[in-house]
Amino acid sequence: MAEIMKGMEVVEEIKEKMLREVEELKARGITPGLAIVRLGAKPDDLAYERSAIKRCEGIGIACRVFEYPEDMTQADLAQEISKINDDSTIHGILLFRPLPKHIDEDIIKHVVSPEKDVDCLNPVNVAKVFEGDPTGFAPCTPEAVMEMLHHYGIPVKGKRVVVIGRSMVVGKPVSMLLLKEHGTVTICHTRTKNIEEICGQADILVAAAGSARMVTDDFVSKGAVVIDVGINVDEEGKLVGDVDFERVEKVAGHITPVPGGVGTVTSSVLAKHVIQAAQRQNP
Amino acid sequence: MAEIMKGMEVVEEIKEKMLREVEELKARGITPGLAIVRLGAKPDDLAYERSAIKRCEGIGIACRVFEYPEDMTQADLAQEISKINDDSTIHGILLFRPLPKHIDEDIIKHVVSPEKDVDCLNPVNVAKVFEGDPTGFAPCTPEAVMEMLHHYGIPVKGKRVVVIGRSMVVGKPVSMLLLKEHGTVTICHTRTKNIEEICGQADILVAAAGSARMVTDDFVSKGAVVIDVGINVDEEGKLVGDVDFERVEKVAGHITPVPGGVGTVTSSVLAKHVIQAAQRQNP
Repeated sequence: MAEIMKGMEVVEEIKEKMLREVEELKARGITPGLAIVRLGAKPDDLAYERSAIKRCEGIGIACRVFEYPEDMTQADLAQEISKINDDSTIHGILLFRPLPKHIDEDIIKHVVSPEKDVDCLNPVNVAKVFEGDPTGFAPCTPEAVMEMLHHYGIPVKGKRVVVIGRSMVVGKPVSMLLLKEHGTVTICHTRTKNIEEICGQADILVAAAGSARMVTDDFVSKGAVVIDVGINVDEEGKLVGDVDFERVEKVAGHITPVPGGVGTVTSSVLAKHVIQAAQRQNP
Repeated sequence: MAEIMKGMEVVEEIKEKMLREVEELKARGITPGLAIVRLGAKPDDLAYERSAIKRCEGIGIACRVFEYPEDMTQADLAQEISKINDDSTIHGILLFRPLPKHIDEDIIKHVVSPEKDVDCLNPVNVAKVFEGDPTGFAPCTPEAVMEMLHHYGIPVKGKRVVVIGRSMVVGKPVSMLLLKEHGTVTICHTRTKNIEEICGQADILVAAAGSARMVTDDFVSKGAVVIDVGINVDEEGKLVGDVDFERVEKVAGHITPVPGGVGTVTSSVLAKHVIQAAQRQNP
């Protein structure tokens, strides 16, 4: 039976380090600040907002919510973001996406200052993830995958890594983070043939396909590390990952659960980015 | 014996299409213009410049060389590039890299207008390659690989593609271009274990390792397509690729030679980008 990789264990480890760093910043008179920018009040956004605020405030980061009406104009949003860029008490900006349809994300993404862009919206940070440049901010979920691997002492160097999914939210950025740590990375997707066979060659398998329980034990070789980034709701309304946990835990060496796995770590990565941003803005 | 994929054949095909497009632009009073910006006069830069000018002028693109002293200041270079950005007779800018050491490419890359950045220097274009967004400009060599595959009617969709090399010049961007065409892409590098075995699984193998003749017939399965992006000089001073041509052509289905392969197509892609830039700037 696989060792279960618990998100909360990783959260606790990161928290210790972050508490020390916040203390150091506060001793210099700096309280790391996060701006959460939200248009409207979608339930999913509110749920993540609550967990992000709880995680951030728990380590001493000041959070401010900027809620605007859903029909706010693009020009007004750009102006508000510019004001937040100029506010030296705020070090990180989280802007909920997708934005309402009348607002062009391709315009707004350039407005968020790269230095405060803790969730990798601005192309400057997107390019840095691609280049493997650590001076930017990667998106939080892919980095949460890496935190999981680091905490559980799983080396990536020289390993065969297979990523299922090629989105800009998870698949592509996590592939670049794994490549930076010297994994030999294969990216699979809906057009991949013989996907079971290819996944079966993986030492580390990252499932980010967005398809409930698609990864069965046919995809996993004995002892492999299986990281499940999927968040799906099955026919019975139950929250499930991309991995068929019951079947795969019998063959895998390590496995992350859903819920309680990667998703749990995401808001800790957000907090980590806010602290890094505060440090970089106050060298 | 493998079919040899000749760069000149691809160049001729692209040329036909470009001649028509330049004609259409000229009928509207627009001559596509390329600015070549060079600091100093390195022999390699001059060689590429000559071939780029020949290729571009051969289809009616106006080229202007902006040569500056190697000790030009960063501020002066930025100012000169800004002037070129503002010159409506110039649609594309090629800036030779690497820049002299006293100039920070991380600053200058933001100065070249993304709309004129035909060689993918600006992070806006780097991010677009990563995202698979075709409104930007990919670097010329990776796109030359795709032109080769297209010309020779080699489908990528659903194929197993292995790329050797993870540079930002070739390996990573070509991986994204191949992924966009729905290949299942594996990226190998110096830390990859069992590289012969992994490469042997490829339907399409792209060698961009920068290591003379490293890809032998042990790396190639019968009938595979082998694209050689390497340009190396061997002990005898001979120009050779990353592929051991003599051995590999006996097993491959298709193979590109060096010289006369991908490298031949690169300046045609540059010309194509200048025309696209002229079209986009004059909708």
